[in-house]
Amino acid sequence: MYEFTAPFQHPSGSPIRELFKYLGEPGMISFAGGYPASDLFDVEGLQQAEARAYRDANLCLQYGPTDGLPGLKRELVNLMARRGVACAPSEMLVTTGSQQGLDLLLRVLVNPGDVALTEQPAYPATLQALRLQQAKVVTLPVDAHGLDVDHLATLLGSGTLARPKLLYTVPTFANPTGATLARERRIALLKLAVQYRFVIVEDDPYGDLRFSGEAVPSILALTEEVQGSRDWVVHFASLSKIVAPGLRVGWTIAPAEIARRCVIAKQTVDLCSAPWTQAIAAEYLADGALERHLPRITAMYGRKCEALCNALHAQLGDVLQFHRPEGGMFVWARLTGSGADSSELLQRAIGNKILFVPGKAFFADNVDAASLRLSFAAPGMADIEEGVRRLKRAGSLPAAGA
Amino acid sequence: MYEFTAPFQHPSGSPIRELFKYLGEPGMISFAGGYPASDLFDVEGLQQAEARAYRDANLCLQYGPTDGLPGLKRELVNLMARRGVACAPSEMLVTTGSQQGLDLLLRVLVNPGDVALTEQPAYPATLQALRLQQAKVVTLPVDAHGLDVDHLATLLGSGTLARPKLLYTVPTFANPTGATLARERRIALLKLAVQYRFVIVEDDPYGDLRFSGEAVPSILALTEEVQGSRDWVVHFASLSKIVAPGLRVGWTIAPAEIARRCVIAKQTVDLCSAPWTQAIAAEYLADGALERHLPRITAMYGRKCEALCNALHAQLGDVLQFHRPEGGMFVWARLTGSGADSSELLQRAIGNKILFVPGKAFFADNVDAASLRLSFAAPGMADIEEGVRRLKRAGSLPAAGA
Repeated sequence: MYEFTAPFQHPSGSPIRELFKYLGEPGMISFAGGYPASDLFDVEGLQQAEARAYRDANLCLQYGPTDGLPGLKRELVNLMARRGVACAPSEMLVTTGSQQGLDLLLRVLVNPGDVALTEQPAYPATLQALRLQQAKVVTLPVDAHGLDVDHLATLLGSGTLARPKLLYTVPTFANPTGATLARERRIALLKLAVQYRFVIVEDDPYGDLRFSGEAVPSILALTEEVQGSRDWVVHFASLSKIVAPGLRVGWTIAPAEIARRCVIAKQTVDLCSAPWTQAIAAEYLADGALERHLPRITAMYGRKCEALCNALHAQLGDVLQFHRPEGGMFVWARLTGSGADSSELLQRAIGNKILFVPGKAFFADNVDAASLRLSFAAPGMADIEEGVRRLKRAGSLPAAGA
Repeated sequence: MYEFTAPFQHPSGSPIRELFKYLGEPGMISFAGGYPASDLFDVEGLQQAEARAYRDANLCLQYGPTDGLPGLKRELVNLMARRGVACAPSEMLVTTGSQQGLDLLLRVLVNPGDVALTEQPAYPATLQALRLQQAKVVTLPVDAHGLDVDHLATLLGSGTLARPKLLYTVPTFANPTGATLARERRIALLKLAVQYRFVIVEDDPYGDLRFSGEAVPSILALTEEVQGSRDWVVHFASLSKIVAPGLRVGWTIAPAEIARRCVIAKQTVDLCSAPWTQAIAAEYLADGALERHLPRITAMYGRKCEALCNALHAQLGDVLQFHRPEGGMFVWARLTGSGADSSELLQRAIGNKILFVPGKAFFADNVDAASLRLSFAAPGMADIEEGVRRLKRAGSLPAAGA
């Protein structure tokens, strides 16, 4: 009746959000969410930041500049400096979470049919954003050290692929694999971007959540080592996983010419992100509260990750393979049984009051039905151990209705 | 170098935002802004609402549902009921200002080349949003009673126009004209929408800001009087002009099939609008603070509008024509001199430390160079009178550089 645009003719919800309906069930334990742990929010620190921000009530209540409050941008420039990246305010815009950064970028950069490369498995909202912009998605394999950059070099060199417009990657503690792209692969990737003139879209929401191993500089930070590569990197970051998603504060760092167009797009899209929460974020960062509080989050996530991995190993080590991540929020696992399908396991798991995300949600093609994503961020320590016990029980029972 | 998409190959800023650079000049008075008056913000009431909202800190700090916090949606459904509209939560989504509502709607509904009808003159961000979606914009004339619906009927009946996908209108206290669409025209417009099967997009940010004359029900409210018309109305509303823009709380009411698709689009665009400011808005509305505070705003806007109109009449009545609006924030005026050009006047006005928006910013075609928009919302009473004196001085001086 309404003749919707192509991406919305048959709208489908996110497969992860489909699981939300089970979350409210009494006694349900969830490894499914991508939510950070609520009990680790710095409730008091943020309240104090709010009180300081509201002293300038007009800043909180009036419209703000489309590219973000100058005071917040100043703090974010400082934060990026601590992460080894020098950037100018003209290269930065504040967005409603980093998710909006991707949407704006795709709208200024991707025409229908343009080739967009992504890791596979990948964050489903990214795949959806690419579909919305009608990009041609080409997936690239990953291993325990992230994107297979050699494979990409071969593919680009073969001449079989149209010049890609961009490559999207979560190189540090990827969603869903938890893998971190090795430093030498980052350098190799930057060289490919310069050679083949495509934009590396580096999504970095989890980089600060390292609880073991050695830090690897972001791809953006490594542009200093590859001549001309800074022109080919757009970097997204966010306070959602390290402070609180409810602020909806993300930011984009891009070559000024790209950033300027993203700001023009944002004028039309929502004028500005909420100035009130921007002002709170600025006060929170200016106070040094992030540096004080972050170690509490990473320490707890480290403990939770260890608990999950230990329990998985002890209870399900014979039927489940996984790598221990060094940070982030996710463990990516595979059922080893022949013909194993995590979606079938999920049906039994729901009956046992335990949720996870079947791996198929993260594939654009060539689905690996045996894979699954387990988040250790939100559940408490006791729930993690009980959750794995339930998972084991689900795995050893016949399917519901079978 | 980057091969941007068509709308961004030559990015241009908003012509209104171009004026922002002058706002900071010492002693500048501005009739240019679309900002509400900062000194009328209910600073204390919002602070109290924030304190109540933060008692449930997790609600403020965690991700929220894409369609909006249920508590806020409940309050907005109640607010719409007070405005004479019954709607279900499934017909409503909360957006980052109503601007985002328009962007989401266009993305699910408008394909490149689709015909979109708009009033002319019209809000520039709307024209920009339509361009971004590559719609074919067809403009319709307005008079002191809003859109010329008879003209539209003739146009639609003539068969010269491809079936329009939608018609965008600000029927109450329009931006920029300040005009309000007469009730009988609203009914006629609804009948046309049913007959020709196009969506009426009713943008209603100013409807509550009435300071004189008699209220006219919204087009959405009048759907009860035209059978089948509810299927063809999408309604945008916002707290930006009646509470504070810094909350970035707008909402869309649409047929459930359209609303559902807008929510799917929003999942990809920004996941959710800031839950913290949504929770504040919910508390503010639940407390009845809007009803208590709104009369202060409308009374002051009424006084300011009267002051501006009286001063314009007294000082510039011989060279300027305008209608007195019954609400909203804007007076739309025309220079009567032959060949008069408000852009030239603006150059001299800037030298005299007074700003307004030249009318050309609001035209997609057939620019009326003699027109201009004057906002009375933000400047104080004394500044309004001084501003008009400066405008008179600017009008009687030779052009800068002449």
